Amino acid sequence: MFLLIGSGYVGSRFCAHLEQAGIPYKVYPREDLDYTGLAELTNHLKEQRPEFLINCAGYTGKPNVDACELHKAECVFGNVVLPDIIRTACERAGVPWGHISSGCIYNGAKPDGSGFKETDPPNFSFRQNNCSFYSGTKALGEEVLADDPNCYIWRLRIPFNETDSSRNYISKVMRYERLLDARNSLSQLEEFVRAAVACWTKRVPFGVYNMTNPGSITTREITEMIKKSGICRKEFNFFADEVEFMRLAAKTPRSNCVLDVTKREKAGIPMTEVHDAVAIALRNWKTA
Amino acid sequence: MFLLIGSGYVGSRFCAHLEQAGIPYKVYPREDLDYTGLAELTNHLKEQRPEFLINCAGYTGKPNVDACELHKAECVFGNVVLPDIIRTACERAGVPWGHISSGCIYNGAKPDGSGFKETDPPNFSFRQNNCSFYSGTKALGEEVLADDPNCYIWRLRIPFNETDSSRNYISKVMRYERLLDARNSLSQLEEFVRAAVACWTKRVPFGVYNMTNPGSITTREITEMIKKSGICRKEFNFFADEVEFMRLAAKTPRSNCVLDVTKREKAGIPMTEVHDAVAIALRNWKTA
Repeated sequence: MFLLIGSGYVGSRFCAHLEQAGIPYKVYPREDLDYTGLAELTNHLKEQRPEFLINCAGYTGKPNVDACELHKAECVFGNVVLPDIIRTACERAGVPWGHISSGCIYNGAKPDGSGFKETDPPNFSFRQNNCSFYSGTKALGEEVLADDPNCYIWRLRIPFNETDSSRNYISKVMRYERLLDARNSLSQLEEFVRAAVACWTKRVPFGVYNMTNPGSITTREITEMIKKSGICRKEFNFFADEVEFMRLAAKTPRSNCVLDVTKREKAGIPMTEVHDAVAIALRNWKTA
Repeated sequence: MFLLIGSGYVGSRFCAHLEQAGIPYKVYPREDLDYTGLAELTNHLKEQRPEFLINCAGYTGKPNVDACELHKAECVFGNVVLPDIIRTACERAGVPWGHISSGCIYNGAKPDGSGFKETDPPNFSFRQNNCSFYSGTKALGEEVLADDPNCYIWRLRIPFNETDSSRNYISKVMRYERLLDARNSLSQLEEFVRAAVACWTKRVPFGVYNMTNPGSITTREITEMIKKSGICRKEFNFFADEVEFMRLAAKTPRSNCVLDVTKREKAGIPMTEVHDAVAIALRNWKTA
């Protein structure tokens, strides 16, 4: 039996995948579990004896990462303290587990244009003092879990899929009045979930994995693909540059980054090339 | 009635001072209060209706700040999340309060040798990536409370007094096998406590205050004063420099800093000049 903590945009996709794969699971939505109760969680795990635990809870900010600047302590709690509570409970109950981190602890790409590897230290964190509060806490969260020998750290990055949603990157691109053109690695949500579960079922070594689709894509490439797909006919407007974007639309800097997925692919956990994955989502596009 | 959270080295001195001053108070030791229980704390405050609350709880690391590197999430919880919980509870219950921060979010002095003012941004924090995990969390704690209009942020710095204790700086200087010579502002503990309470009783404006004795003092000056006092006859050994200190004795960088106390003095809250305060402690030295 799998145990999930958190049942939001990502957690609900884990439920759907486990359901479909015939893997029994239980889920603790935010309101049902006292996150802060280390003893309670530990006892729960000792009673339930799950095969594996997945932490899908975290503080992302609604409608976007700017909100984390107004809720700093909640953000620190959800992204740094809670993972440590889960880590300690899992250690005490002997439960292996996976934590959903984020690629947003990087910005840009390496000088040669290649993506950041799992061994590259974050370059968009409190320690560089160039980041959003959200990115800062996600990087601290990885520090807190760095020496856990029974934990996967899965770096999700700008999730998208074929279903219109305020959390879906393709929907966001269509809804924002104006866009910043930037190059990013992305995570097709169902592929991310399948790959994460496969890490455990295939028993790949614990540790950090970049869980994005191979390659990278620019915002303009996506808007071109959207226009060609016919799902949206609007003219897309772009900011002149990041300076204008920061001045007019954002309260805190955004990460735009390219990740290297060689480690995951070598572990036998493939995902679809990013342009192909976006094309598939657009081809199967459905509104709720 | 005053309400204290935390009853450690600093909290117990607040109790003693309030007792002596005839100010009624209640204290919640770490084990008696569910720090994480915002609703519980809020209800408590609404029932008890304290005139003022003092947060003396925090995570400092035992025997020293190196321990925070091993307990990162607890450190983040005690120094960032907990202050925010207390802040929210105080806001909801309409209780003014004071938080004990630390001067350790600075390192060194200004180029002209003067101390850092309350308006100077921290220069020893995650954002400079030059600090201990402890200092990083104390600086984030100040960020979380920065816009609270009913809160004092009191910066304590290397507490000492006349009573031998593992937490007393004078005792530490006498017990360490080898010392790093550095210039620091210090806080005589009873004066700190008296000044903190006076902030409220004199109704000085809320905000950040450097709560150190005026001036600064070097480790060598203190060892000379200790030798002259006769309370300890040992020969003090010093590291050649900070590089040797870091290599041989410390896991994480230490803050050494000078603070400017003009703001507090102008508010009518004096403390004794630091050399005089150390001399008084040595003159009245007592072992437990």
